[in-house]
Amino acid sequence: MIAEILATGDEIRSGALVDSNSAYIAEALEREGLEVTRHLCVGDDLKTIAAVFGEIARRADVALVTGGLGPTEDDLTTEAAARAADVELVLDKDALVAIEAFFMRLNRPMTRSNRKQALFPSGSDVLPNPIGTAPGFKIKIDSCTFFCLPGVPREMRKMLADEVIPRLISLSGNIRQFSMVRILSTFGYTESMIGERLSGIAADFPEISLGLRAKFPEIQVRLYIRGNDEDQLNHRLAIVAERVGEKLGNKIFSDDGRSIQAVVGDLLIKKDATVAVAESCTGGLIAHLLTNVPGSSRYFLFSGVTYANDAKIDVLGVPPETIETYGAVSLQTVRRMAAGARETANATYSIATSGIAGPDGGTDEKPVGTVCIGLAGPEGVAARQFYFPFGNRTGKKKLFAMAALDALRRHLLGMGGLILFNCTIRSPEFPFKICSCAKPAMRYTS
Amino acid sequence: MIAEILATGDEIRSGALVDSNSAYIAEALEREGLEVTRHLCVGDDLKTIAAVFGEIARRADVALVTGGLGPTEDDLTTEAAARAADVELVLDKDALVAIEAFFMRLNRPMTRSNRKQALFPSGSDVLPNPIGTAPGFKIKIDSCTFFCLPGVPREMRKMLADEVIPRLISLSGNIRQFSMVRILSTFGYTESMIGERLSGIAADFPEISLGLRAKFPEIQVRLYIRGNDEDQLNHRLAIVAERVGEKLGNKIFSDDGRSIQAVVGDLLIKKDATVAVAESCTGGLIAHLLTNVPGSSRYFLFSGVTYANDAKIDVLGVPPETIETYGAVSLQTVRRMAAGARETANATYSIATSGIAGPDGGTDEKPVGTVCIGLAGPEGVAARQFYFPFGNRTGKKKLFAMAALDALRRHLLGMGGLILFNCTIRSPEFPFKICSCAKPAMRYTS
Repeated sequence: MIAEILATGDEIRSGALVDSNSAYIAEALEREGLEVTRHLCVGDDLKTIAAVFGEIARRADVALVTGGLGPTEDDLTTEAAARAADVELVLDKDALVAIEAFFMRLNRPMTRSNRKQALFPSGSDVLPNPIGTAPGFKIKIDSCTFFCLPGVPREMRKMLADEVIPRLISLSGNIRQFSMVRILSTFGYTESMIGERLSGIAADFPEISLGLRAKFPEIQVRLYIRGNDEDQLNHRLAIVAERVGEKLGNKIFSDDGRSIQAVVGDLLIKKDATVAVAESCTGGLIAHLLTNVPGSSRYFLFSGVTYANDAKIDVLGVPPETIETYGAVSLQTVRRMAAGARETANATYSIATSGIAGPDGGTDEKPVGTVCIGLAGPEGVAARQFYFPFGNRTGKKKLFAMAALDALRRHLLGMGGLILFNCTIRSPEFPFKICSCAKPAMRYTS
Repeated sequence: MIAEILATGDEIRSGALVDSNSAYIAEALEREGLEVTRHLCVGDDLKTIAAVFGEIARRADVALVTGGLGPTEDDLTTEAAARAADVELVLDKDALVAIEAFFMRLNRPMTRSNRKQALFPSGSDVLPNPIGTAPGFKIKIDSCTFFCLPGVPREMRKMLADEVIPRLISLSGNIRQFSMVRILSTFGYTESMIGERLSGIAADFPEISLGLRAKFPEIQVRLYIRGNDEDQLNHRLAIVAERVGEKLGNKIFSDDGRSIQAVVGDLLIKKDATVAVAESCTGGLIAHLLTNVPGSSRYFLFSGVTYANDAKIDVLGVPPETIETYGAVSLQTVRRMAAGARETANATYSIATSGIAGPDGGTDEKPVGTVCIGLAGPEGVAARQFYFPFGNRTGKKKLFAMAALDALRRHLLGMGGLILFNCTIRSPEFPFKICSCAKPAMRYTS
């Protein structure tokens, strides 16, 4: 079965909004074994939308359409579908009741224009929208089945999962193919290094399609497989994932799409441990990432975002002499910061960052991109300096935060934390700059 | 002139990658007065790409194509263009020299496949790529001019600005129109409230197109105008922006696209003031936003991300009795947190947050979405409680952080900070839930 995707709306057509819906839908359809051959986008113009419906109907078996189901005059998808199918619009009483109930729940008056959202092309099936006012619908034009969904991503995603995918499965009947994906998230190797290391695997497992996707600052190894025996596909994926694991080792931080902060959180829970953070150059990003994880209050206690040196001294107890002698961006200072955060919060572990995110503040000795990362735990304190010569200010903050979280992850896994830390990494925006590890010296002191 | 945009590549077609290039190009073309009528995306398939070139040539005057110019076998745009134009591929010696020079600069060997990138359809003009190996080209098929650019966003953007836009301007000749946009960023009104307030303006200024764009948690009012007299357009935009300003008042926090953290930073610099933060529920996000602004070390001193109550007590000096008596999420506690952060960091101002971002931790009295915001300055300490009943955990963190930064912005502008704080706001994902201001009581105490 061939599928096409159509996004409607002037905001997307004019570039005011990036269309993320189409990629989401394409991935979901491919997962179900449908081949997506084309995406289209047109604006809020009745004639154009109706014409595109006609074009798609001549090419595809299935079409997913987003946008244009709202209450305003700009919302033209329903009318365009009726025109392309050459049918009238009719009022769906159940849909009207559902829309009225939605406004009742919100305790707000329903406007007359919302009534328009209960009109559908004659012969279409209404697709309920439990979390918004715009129901969708399914209509067949020529031999193509169109699923029209709202453009609001949250509503679209729910309806795609609940209403569209089950219908697609029954449409494809016996010829159904499964398409499965396994995502291995890595940090520490460049794309080309991963490519080289995995080069033999593609030849050994021709049924697997292997893709690399830079999701800065991590790089995902994505394994795709298709077939009709679900168990067998899972088995093959597991074998290949293991092979990839052998090649990439501890650079892989999750094999199920979890973020590094979620992985670190789970490791802390397993150890019944807590964590504190001391942040200079990362400016609160590490704490923000850690607290994005639901339930993180179980292990995350405190971050001292000590941008000013006085704050490093007053809050974290860094001796002024340390900063004076070695500078704020130094192994000595981050060791003290890590130890101070751990002590202040009475935490099991702590990580600390001090560096230069730029654009200003760099020197010859410590250029923009330099970061010192400290780690403290019951075993002692360690620190290491890195240099990431790419990315802008926010990109560098992300790299620094990732490096610190990865140091803690490795330490919690007994991989030596900072010692085994690999410091070659690549920004997707820059080809192949290897960052050197300045001052490899470090020690654990109890 | 009518323009279409084509993105090629299996990663975009299959949804592995979101296509942000097309929106970027659409916005750039619209700015130059071209009407973008359609975006398309197809995969790495020679026959399909060539067919789509033919379709576009029949409809459009100009087409922008991205992707498929690389050295590998998957890169088929050049061959497809030649096929659609019914011409041969020929080697461009200048392009070959440029590619060789590029590899020389990187000190890396050039592979044989890179030679392919110097082949172009006969009769096309090469568009140099100064920052990558893939040059683009311009070719006319029927009456449509195609500009083919690499898919790497950084390279595409540079070539669009340097090579494509100037040629488009000369293509459009005397009929050139300017398209201008002014962005007013707001926080505090719902989309529908803004729509109602601005309803008269569209009628008074028919030459202005007025759009609302939810960029959660802010809502942007975007004013578009087109014409051929640049000065007159600027003048009209200024008049309309002033009218919008009268209607939305202090809900507008910037009229030049600046983020709220940049606005707050500029206000602090103007006052020669510094800021500290005390964050519970926002978990470091406020500090992260503030430190995303280059040069923020001039005014940002410290944030205490005090998730644990002990950290609130030990680092910020919140009396244990206050937390015991009123709870961590209370006006009393955030007042103490704000005062403590200000004192600890010796800052001019401070803001504090304590709330429930969810998904767990809510009670009947203080449901998920409740947040108390504190503000301290030389004038005293104030606090207020808000309730934002929408968005997920990360969405709530963003709302809480925005509300706190906006309170400081208003205070710095002498608008009364928390007192005048409007607390109706809407998530773009949820229609129209008005959050109530519980406990309006607050006071400034010196």
